[in-house]
Amino acid sequence: MPHIDLPGNFPGIVAGFNFRPETAKPMRELAHILLHEPNSLTGGERELIAAYVSSRNKTTFCELSHGAAAAAHLGGDQVVKQVKTDVSTAEVSPKMKALFHIAGKVQLDGKLVTAADVDAARKEGATDLEIHDTVLIAAAFSMYNRYVDGLGTMQPSDPGLYAQMGKHLATEGYLVPAVREPVGAA
Amino acid sequence: MPHIDLPGNFPGIVAGFNFRPETAKPMRELAHILLHEPNSLTGGERELIAAYVSSRNKTTFCELSHGAAAAAHLGGDQVVKQVKTDVSTAEVSPKMKALFHIAGKVQLDGKLVTAADVDAARKEGATDLEIHDTVLIAAAFSMYNRYVDGLGTMQPSDPGLYAQMGKHLATEGYLVPAVREPVGAA
Repeated sequence: MPHIDLPGNFPGIVAGFNFRPETAKPMRELAHILLHEPNSLTGGERELIAAYVSSRNKTTFCELSHGAAAAAHLGGDQVVKQVKTDVSTAEVSPKMKALFHIAGKVQLDGKLVTAADVDAARKEGATDLEIHDTVLIAAAFSMYNRYVDGLGTMQPSDPGLYAQMGKHLATEGYLVPAVREPVGAA
Repeated sequence: MPHIDLPGNFPGIVAGFNFRPETAKPMRELAHILLHEPNSLTGGERELIAAYVSSRNKTTFCELSHGAAAAAHLGGDQVVKQVKTDVSTAEVSPKMKALFHIAGKVQLDGKLVTAADVDAARKEGATDLEIHDTVLIAAAFSMYNRYVDGLGTMQPSDPGLYAQMGKHLATEGYLVPAVREPVGAA
């Protein structure tokens, strides 16, 4: 049961966005810029960071929806599973491993990021913008995850829902809602 | 030293906002809606929540700037100090104490918020919108704090800087930058 009277029966962040459209607008825009607009990090790489942070925060809705978006970008969920299990052995580039390391620290506390962490990412080819966006994606999901969990939203586990959302997010981005009908509606 | 090449010598989040204006825009808008637009929670009450969460995250720039904004709203910094020291004895309403309790849980992990926490706030007169906004302010500062810390931004301790920022934030809000000159510039 959600902690407040969220309209309809919408899952996860969609319930909060429908309750307060004013705050939903900039929150959607931020996700769209960070995860969907053109970037030297691919959409799949950025969605993997979002799924990784959400997985570490154990926020089911965000973990599964961004995991599904990453899988839609990458053509399968194998790497998504690897990243959530053990980044060090996942089939991602050394640059991405260094960026996941930074994202994991930001998820805990931004002050844990060291100059050595950033140098290591730079040595693998990461640009300042890529490092910036990695920090901000991890910081932003520290918000989205807490918002979804703190409102006590419904977080379904049905893979079908997330597969559909993931396709929408990977192709359309975040400005138009991926879920427009309450879950279980006819 | 900031971890990446942030232009000028701007403090805290201003440095990140100048580096990436695209993401700054929705981040400013979100803060403006949550902290500055008309609300049944006063500007002082909302800035206190922002300062409280930032204090718990030990993010100096956010703690001192939002503490100064709260002090500007409230006409002094006595309650700001009290809230950061011990909410239970601070001179704030029982409703605000219940909302601080929720914000403190969201700062750690949104899943810690219980139906009993929300019922307690409601019994003191909190509305669903006030509970929603408390959760989202605490979640948003989990982002802003990590962004400021994760980039290794300069976080001055000069009270004069923050007093000036606090006045600007309390009167003008968040759409127009409070700091337009690099720190130490002529």
